[in-house]
Amino acid sequence: MTREEVTEMVLSAKRLKGLTWKQIHERVSVSTSPVVVTAALLGQMRLEPGEAARAAEMLDLPKEAEILLTEIPYRGSLGEIPPTDPLIYRFYELVMVYGTTWKELIQEEFGDGIMSAIDFDMTLERQPDQKGDRVKLAMSGKFLGYKRY
Amino acid sequence: MTREEVTEMVLSAKRLKGLTWKQIHERVSVSTSPVVVTAALLGQMRLEPGEAARAAEMLDLPKEAEILLTEIPYRGSLGEIPPTDPLIYRFYELVMVYGTTWKELIQEEFGDGIMSAIDFDMTLERQPDQKGDRVKLAMSGKFLGYKRY
Amino acid sequence: MTREEVTEMVLSAKRLKGLTWKQIHERVSVSTSPVVVTAALLGQMRLEPGEAARAAEMLDLPKEAEILLTEIPYRGSLGEIPPTDPLIYRFYELVMVYGTTWKELIQEEFGDGIMSAIDFDMTLERQPDQKGDRVKLAMSGKFLGYKRY
Amino acid sequence: MTREEVTEMVLSAKRLKGLTWKQIHERVSVSTSPVVVTAALLGQMRLEPGEAARAAEMLDLPKEAEILLTEIPYRGSLGEIPPTDPLIYRFYELVMVYGTTWKELIQEEFGDGIMSAIDFDMTLERQPDQKGDRVKLAMSGKFLGYKRY
Amino acid sequence: MTREEVTEMVLSAKRLKGLTWKQIHERVSVSTSPVVVTAALLGQMRLEPGEAARAAEMLDLPKEAEILLTEIPYRGSLGEIPPTDPLIYRFYELVMVYGTTWKELIQEEFGDGIMSAIDFDMTLERQPDQKGDRVKLAMSGKFLGYKRY
Amino acid sequence: MTREEVTEMVLSAKRLKGLTWKQIHERVSVSTSPVVVTAALLGQMRLEPGEAARAAEMLDLPKEAEILLTEIPYRGSLGEIPPTDPLIYRFYELVMVYGTTWKELIQEEFGDGIMSAIDFDMTLERQPDQKGDRVKLAMSGKFLGYKRY
Amino acid sequence: MTREEVTEMVLSAKRLKGLTWKQIHERVSVSTSPVVVTAALLGQMRLEPGEAARAAEMLDLPKEAEILLTEIPYRGSLGEIPPTDPLIYRFYELVMVYGTTWKELIQEEFGDGIMSAIDFDMTLERQPDQKGDRVKLAMSGKFLGYKRY
Amino acid sequence: MTREEVTEMVLSAKRLKGLTWKQIHERVSVSTSPVVVTAALLGQMRLEPGEAARAAEMLDLPKEAEILLTEIPYRGSLGEIPPTDPLIYRFYELVMVYGTTWKELIQEEFGDGIMSAIDFDMTLERQPDQKGDRVKLAMSGKFLGYKRY
Amino acid sequence: MTREEVTEMVLSAKRLKGLTWKQIHERVSVSTSPVVVTAALLGQMRLEPGEAARAAEMLDLPKEAEILLTEIPYRGSLGEIPPTDPLIYRFYELVMVYGTTWKELIQEEFGDGIMSAIDFDMTLERQPDQKGDRVKLAMSGKFLGYKRY
Amino acid sequence: MTREEVTEMVLSAKRLKGLTWKQIHERVSVSTSPVVVTAALLGQMRLEPGEAARAAEMLDLPKEAEILLTEIPYRGSLGEIPPTDPLIYRFYELVMVYGTTWKELIQEEFGDGIMSAIDFDMTLERQPDQKGDRVKLAMSGKFLGYKRY
Repeated sequence: MTREEVTEMVLSAKRLKGLTWKQIHERVSVSTSPVVVTAALLGQMRLEPGEAARAAEMLDLPKEAEILLTEIPYRGSLGEIPPTDPLIYRFYELVMVYGTTWKELIQEEFGDGIMSAIDFDMTLERQPDQKGDRVKLAMSGKFLGYKRY
Repeated sequence: MTREEVTEMVLSAKRLKGLTWKQIHERVSVSTSPVVVTAALLGQMRLEPGEAARAAEMLDLPKEAEILLTEIPYRGSLGEIPPTDPLIYRFYELVMVYGTTWKELIQEEFGDGIMSAIDFDMTLERQPDQKGDRVKLAMSGKFLGYKRY
Repeated sequence: MTREEVTEMVLSAKRLKGLTWKQIHERVSVSTSPVVVTAALLGQMRLEPGEAARAAEMLDLPKEAEILLTEIPYRGSLGEIPPTDPLIYRFYELVMVYGTTWKELIQEEFGDGIMSAIDFDMTLERQPDQKGDRVKLAMSGKFLGYKRY
Repeated sequence: MTREEVTEMVLSAKRLKGLTWKQIHERVSVSTSPVVVTAALLGQMRLEPGEAARAAEMLDLPKEAEILLTEIPYRGSLGEIPPTDPLIYRFYELVMVYGTTWKELIQEEFGDGIMSAIDFDMTLERQPDQKGDRVKLAMSGKFLGYKRY
Repeated sequence: MTREEVTEMVLSAKRLKGLTWKQIHERVSVSTSPVVVTAALLGQMRLEPGEAARAAEMLDLPKEAEILLTEIPYRGSLGEIPPTDPLIYRFYELVMVYGTTWKELIQEEFGDGIMSAIDFDMTLERQPDQKGDRVKLAMSGKFLGYKRY
Repeated sequence: MTREEVTEMVLSAKRLKGLTWKQIHERVSVSTSPVVVTAALLGQMRLEPGEAARAAEMLDLPKEAEILLTEIPYRGSLGEIPPTDPLIYRFYELVMVYGTTWKELIQEEFGDGIMSAIDFDMTLERQPDQKGDRVKLAMSGKFLGYKRY
Repeated sequence: MTREEVTEMVLSAKRLKGLTWKQIHERVSVSTSPVVVTAALLGQMRLEPGEAARAAEMLDLPKEAEILLTEIPYRGSLGEIPPTDPLIYRFYELVMVYGTTWKELIQEEFGDGIMSAIDFDMTLERQPDQKGDRVKLAMSGKFLGYKRY
Repeated sequence: MTREEVTEMVLSAKRLKGLTWKQIHERVSVSTSPVVVTAALLGQMRLEPGEAARAAEMLDLPKEAEILLTEIPYRGSLGEIPPTDPLIYRFYELVMVYGTTWKELIQEEFGDGIMSAIDFDMTLERQPDQKGDRVKLAMSGKFLGYKRY
Repeated sequence: MTREEVTEMVLSAKRLKGLTWKQIHERVSVSTSPVVVTAALLGQMRLEPGEAARAAEMLDLPKEAEILLTEIPYRGSLGEIPPTDPLIYRFYELVMVYGTTWKELIQEEFGDGIMSAIDFDMTLERQPDQKGDRVKLAMSGKFLGYKRY
Repeated sequence: MTREEVTEMVLSAKRLKGLTWKQIHERVSVSTSPVVVTAALLGQMRLEPGEAARAAEMLDLPKEAEILLTEIPYRGSLGEIPPTDPLIYRFYELVMVYGTTWKELIQEEFGDGIMSAIDFDMTLERQPDQKGDRVKLAMSGKFLGYKRY
């Protein structure tokens, strides 16, 4: 059984049971962010054993799938790069357009280093707006300075 | 003269005059975000004529460069994809790891559509933290629903 | 079950029952364009639940396929880019040949921004012509101006 | 001298003289569409000798550039595929999303063949709309049937 | 059932029955060229219903395969480009070596346009030669002039 | 001096002197095909010393360019693959669509081997036709059988 | 059944029966080189009917596999280019490092043309050496001169 | 000055002085193979100081070019992969066709390891043959066994 | 059965039996490094017959899988390059950032040649550190000098 | 002036003055590793102002080059991936062969996370060995655990 097969099982059970990610998140883990839980069920993060057990029960997953959800996955959720899906492509486009600007402004503020994508967290929320609601994505990553040696 | 040549002139003048993006931003436009001003000077956004004039004066740019700064650029700041620079790559990695999660969560909340990368704004700031300061990037884009016709 | 499998089921049922897209469209949804209905059955748009139910009945699709037709798909209909099929390639060629012209003329008329591919609609029709009938494709997308912030 | 150099000369003269494509088109050729004239000046179509002479005079181009504008160019206006510029990318995205739908609907209507990208014309116009004006692009290409032999 | 599966069935039946393309062509259609019949059975052209029926009978193909042979295929016969097979690569090499020469000579003779690959026919024959027989490939495509509009 | 520079010199002289390939061919070599002479001047074949001398005189090329025309070039005339120019792309498309058919039919007739692209010749001519003249391209290459050892 | 499946059957039978390529070669064909026999069983060359019959008997292959071994394969043994396997990559590296040198020296000696990869043979042997035995690969291909026409 | 510029200087001097690689090799180094000397002058190997001095004198190279010829180059002689030049492509094709066969036969004879492309030598010679002379290329590389640790 | 299938069987058995690589290594081979044993079970190295037998027993692998573990694999463990997984990408990034530095420093110290990736060994260990433990990777490869001939 | 131009100036001065990296390192910075100093002069790391001043003096670099050496570069030292140079390729090969093994062993020891390529240091040294000296590369990177949120 591969992690991709677990992701397909998760999506199929979610579909046939008429569940939402919100409902799954609420049952699986209150202390963890819905971003992490959803990413794990899509094969990009890992769940704690208790979380995996609750997910497996809710989604009727077999034992091996439950264990796989606790394993560290081989990350990378997109079959092709650049992503063909328009929603995901827009984020990719932001990297292409703003990449050098982020580099200049972060390094002017912090010095030589990067924003970690590992010691990292994020929130995703709806921002009401009269001209049409907005998607608000806030990311925060630890600044890691290049070590001199 | 090409926009790439203007970007090189900007970087060279900034370097030789010992300026920071912050100083350039303050002189060029107080009403516009430093992200937009920096992106424009790196060839990814356009400046208003008054802003371009102030930038050209501060950076000793020739007239054609000043006009070019007011033109809409052919966007795309990265010479190669995936980006080889580690700071920029980390953002690219976030798209690969979280792309499908963003799609699931945004579309569950908003329905079929995308987060606009055009009707879009962003802030970038330092988030003090005892374990090491963090880079905070907050993005907000209008949700655009797929039109049915 | 994946969306690709649903697309294969749709094509197989259409073939064995000797149906046309026109007939399918007429049964599935009179208020929606044949472009949208066909695109949805090819895995690129979503159907409303009632439409999906009618499509599933007409094409003998199982329940999970019917639900999948109402889900937002991971868009991108071409297995390889550039497309090897000559009909589709000609559109790709138009983008290569006219891309920069469209950019210049749209932005001269509207300012900095894009033509939306989301708030977008299209019609496709036969244009009778003595020297040989023509394919007429009319696209209309909302102009979205780059936000300054 | 290469055609790319002529395109750069055109863009530079247009910028320094403060001209628009509309003004250039009006002076160069009233009988030809602005799409064709702009595309030719961007290196994708050819001008008639009289048109090239008027363009060269208006834009102060040297003789070899004038002749080059009457030559058939090596077409392909984009330096990289997929195009990194958001305006142009949206058209590319339409090909990816709707490519198979166009194939199905055109071939159901016309039989085996393609829409010509050579015996082809197009108009581009502003479509006023209360919710925001729209870009309207209408393409028409002769249907060419696959020859059986 | 996909067209690729039909191609595999055709090749397997041809192999086990010890048939040649010549024999298949003779039974399937005397009025159509062996190039077209072979290309159709390899998934690149379509057969007329009567031809498909004769092919299906000769090769013991199931009904859905017979219908698929009458459908317009998604063209493109090579899994990878450049083609790894030496026979096919030599043709690809001719395009690379002579591509610009063909462009210059055809356009000098005919003006701005292309040789159609749709209104196109071809013959393939053995040319006896003392120093070793030669493969003779004669192609003829309608010249299509670029439309000015 | 590189061969690409010689090609540019040739194209520039041809343009400014208002010459055609036909005129150049007639002056350079009556015994050699216009295809070979044109290909050589475009950097894909070599000229004999006498031919190169006549070409250099007619086109005012410097001595090193004349010698370069007699050298065996690094072949490959297209800057990018697949070729973006529509005329050249159509030939590329023929390889993609008919590649496997050519393989089947040539090998059924000749056995295991290839059509040589080296011991090869070709003619290109106008084929008058009431429905529009056609481009006729006839290629002939020696069959080379795979050696068994 | 595809040629790739035959290759897998061959490898599996060889493994389970504990055979070497040397043993297989000796049984299949004494008059043909082990290079050819091995390449054929790996899907890159064809066997004569008698050879295929002996191979099929020794390796318990079904009838269709036996016939497939006598068919001309679609050549190209590597799934990805550049090859990831270190042994095969070293040969690829030799082409990258010495490619232009081979071109210069072969063409200085023979004139304009190539070394055939079709009328070609090769031996592979162990060369004893005190500092560590060496692999000796000797290739010989007919020189084919570019035809002038 | 870059190594590519030195290669261009070498080729230009060789051309204008009418030299052959054989003559250059004889003057530069009798003890080293013509393959090594040619490869070095094409930027793929290094020369000993005395050799570089003789080459520089013979080809009128400036001092920095002479030093560059003694430096270890960044290897890789081909601008694009796969190589577009037919002579070089044939070698590339051999790797694609025979790659897996070489792996099987070398590893059956020697065990787990590779043929070194570093502790490697080669000869290139003309092999007279009645049916047309042949190019003979003999390579010998030390077998390097994978270390177990 | 392919090596990829063996790798999947190994991972599945390890998961269901709750084993660690450390436990597997200890049972399979005390004299061989855990790096080699793990790499072999992941399809990148080979095991000795006794090691394979112990691995097969511990992981309930069928006989063919056991034999496959003793065969030399087609190496290359990553499905896509650049690797999408962040842990593996960081190593890839080190090659991009430090590649030219390694070349300069190794060749200044040792002369023209490479560090072997075949006569090579490595250790991987935890390096305790107050600011957070570190991963220590020590590689050692034989220097192989380019042979002059 | 670009960083690539500074790298070329550095290499040219080093060559003409006959300096080694060791000598440059000793003059530029005793407290910093030769790896860092060399990487900075090759455009991959930054120097402190005092170090840059000493480097500029030793290598006769102009003022802008000196400032550029203190700027954070756009990292990525290889023009093409995979690297064509054999020395650098071997490191790339190690990532391909051992990538999944590193992932398994590091994550079994440390949990979910990565080895930092930023908070990272390395040494490179000669390891004397009777069978031929070895290159020893020791890397140490902080383990960064994936944050749960």
